[in-house]
Amino acid sequence: MRQSQLFTKTLKNVAKDEQSVNAQLLERGGFAYKNFAGVYSYLPLGLKVLNKVINIIREEMNAIGGQEVMLNTLQDPELWKKTDRWSDASVDIWFKTRLKNDAELGLGYSHEEPLTEIMSHYISSYKDLPAYVYQFQTKFRNELRAKSGILRVREFLMKDLYSFSRTAEELEEFYEKAAQAYLKIFQRAGLGEVTYRTFASGGIFSKFSDEFQTVCETGEDTIYLDRKKRIAVNKEVYQDDVLKELGLNKKNLDEVKAIEVGNIFKLGARFSEPLGLNYTDGSGKKHPVIMGCYGIGPGRLMGTIVEVMHDSRGIIWPESVAPFKVHLVDLNKSGEKLYETLLSAGIEVLWDDREASAGVKFADADLIGIPLRAVVSEKTGDKIELKKRNEEKIELVDIKELLKI
Amino acid sequence: MRQSQLFTKTLKNVAKDEQSVNAQLLERGGFAYKNFAGVYSYLPLGLKVLNKVINIIREEMNAIGGQEVMLNTLQDPELWKKTDRWSDASVDIWFKTRLKNDAELGLGYSHEEPLTEIMSHYISSYKDLPAYVYQFQTKFRNELRAKSGILRVREFLMKDLYSFSRTAEELEEFYEKAAQAYLKIFQRAGLGEVTYRTFASGGIFSKFSDEFQTVCETGEDTIYLDRKKRIAVNKEVYQDDVLKELGLNKKNLDEVKAIEVGNIFKLGARFSEPLGLNYTDGSGKKHPVIMGCYGIGPGRLMGTIVEVMHDSRGIIWPESVAPFKVHLVDLNKSGEKLYETLLSAGIEVLWDDREASAGVKFADADLIGIPLRAVVSEKTGDKIELKKRNEEKIELVDIKELLKI
Repeated sequence: MRQSQLFTKTLKNVAKDEQSVNAQLLERGGFAYKNFAGVYSYLPLGLKVLNKVINIIREEMNAIGGQEVMLNTLQDPELWKKTDRWSDASVDIWFKTRLKNDAELGLGYSHEEPLTEIMSHYISSYKDLPAYVYQFQTKFRNELRAKSGILRVREFLMKDLYSFSRTAEELEEFYEKAAQAYLKIFQRAGLGEVTYRTFASGGIFSKFSDEFQTVCETGEDTIYLDRKKRIAVNKEVYQDDVLKELGLNKKNLDEVKAIEVGNIFKLGARFSEPLGLNYTDGSGKKHPVIMGCYGIGPGRLMGTIVEVMHDSRGIIWPESVAPFKVHLVDLNKSGEKLYETLLSAGIEVLWDDREASAGVKFADADLIGIPLRAVVSEKTGDKIELKKRNEEKIELVDIKELLKI
Repeated sequence: MRQSQLFTKTLKNVAKDEQSVNAQLLERGGFAYKNFAGVYSYLPLGLKVLNKVINIIREEMNAIGGQEVMLNTLQDPELWKKTDRWSDASVDIWFKTRLKNDAELGLGYSHEEPLTEIMSHYISSYKDLPAYVYQFQTKFRNELRAKSGILRVREFLMKDLYSFSRTAEELEEFYEKAAQAYLKIFQRAGLGEVTYRTFASGGIFSKFSDEFQTVCETGEDTIYLDRKKRIAVNKEVYQDDVLKELGLNKKNLDEVKAIEVGNIFKLGARFSEPLGLNYTDGSGKKHPVIMGCYGIGPGRLMGTIVEVMHDSRGIIWPESVAPFKVHLVDLNKSGEKLYETLLSAGIEVLWDDREASAGVKFADADLIGIPLRAVVSEKTGDKIELKKRNEEKIELVDIKELLKI
């Protein structure tokens, strides 16, 4: 893409109330725009990153048998009353609205109820199970205080997968598969090293749930980390009996701050029973379907990447989610041929063809954080000055070498 | 995909209150699920079709210079008060909700206001223009009566593009480009023959807007059609002076029912003035930016395709938006090798590997409406019985010939 045609520009400053690093850098770089507290828009560069994050998640969900759907935002209270999740006393983050006839509706903050109801039309026999269904959808949560930039917001995209199994053992088997898929996602998104599977409080059906926590000073959560075993315990279940059960020793645990980038949860029959999602086994006996749920917020993951990977000059995107692979910084209007060559080779490139000083162009390249900076100028002749965003070393290469990268 | 693993099943009947053909067929085929009046979910087959429609639209919007974003659903009343579109007296389709502190918010039914506000941070000089920005986003409209299946609903995906130009002439130029892109979209989606650019009522800034109307008996709109000139006039502007202005003769016009599948509208300074979106020209003089807006609902387009292209047995998808290219109907469990071969060749195939009778499989194939049915059975040996969904002719071919299709 030609940078001169990008409608966004980098900004020197953002609103004073924007405390978090992720929002500051994403707004300054032209990735995101804060509409008001807890509500952000994704601009072209930001949407490119978000879509790469989404595609990584989608590929891993498909790999474990997920089938993608797109469910409704507007929610019918009748369904949610059956599971006792409609009243503001039981769920305090609903946004509610009304139809013209004054009937109340809610804006979906999660989708166990509508999907369980849908599945009850398609599942009746043990032969129909297991099934794994997921979506990417905007969720609405009426948070008292939105905070941490794009990490805790009032509307956000979420990948939510729900599993439908015959037995607790079948759920357990898929749950482990999903946990491994989650670790793969964080690995691919560049957060593998600093993200830990973390024991957290469970529910009626199981003692623990699993969170995926990314170690980061600005995180909201406190976890206790066994770096060697690569597992952690959330502060909420950091008790002697729990540590004993998990075979962890306090001496080996570090207390660190972390950002929750995903969580998976065994639901058992919590939703299938009140909503009548049953199956009959081989002998004709009826059982409730055993469910699990598996969430990741692609926007939160993107914000976490920025929190973890930046320096004083800007963002340092991992290649897998970067908006472009190469930032072609053109200092003497000689880049067009190279731009076309890179495009033909299928390399995603942002060509800085703007009328601007070298200083402005270099500062913007650092702020935007594309992994590879390729400079052409009078000085470089027919060579290209190549620099990785996360290294200081500068190399002089020719086009052939650049194409191999 | 293996049909045995698809969690949906075809249904014999749908709810009695479902009058429209599109909803009946989409629900029976497992494409969509009606959550409640005016609110539908997209199931795996339906989401595949929807995504193909979206991709056609995205390609054509990118081709005319569109830059994709994703804006906010939750809307700040202050912005909409500035353009006098907040009160229920001026806009009667708002869904409204409240924050915990009781501040009112709206659910976006269109996005002129938030995008104009965003652009005011990036546009200041004539050098920043023109710009074309679009998104695919769920809109919410509090319709008194939802009707016509997925055609008139309370929440729906919309592609909305907004153009930002310096002058009326520059707007005009892009407006015509956008109109041509729209015709291309309907052509690619299989509705080219029956979709007409239609003069409809304009606003303050221009006498007419342009609708794109697909001729269909079940349409809500009445248009007057000049088949030879391939243009039409909406009933709302069907007046002698208008016909004269457009060079149309009543004698050559047919009155037909039609479905509005897109519309484009010149906005002028209607939003840029109250929201302060200005630019300075070369001599330093300030002007309001001249805007246009361009809408298509991918779900409505999908529903219209079904209304236009079906028979008594089911849907007849055009190849460009079909969920799969080939429906491999396997009558003797001999299809696996062919399935793998088609997949390796990059052909999208739904393999009916279910335990079911030939009659059930054929009926389901007709209902789901994949363009090409490939039957393997004891009778066909190492050949394949090929039939197009929209033809009666059956051909016996070998794998090589099938791969060429």
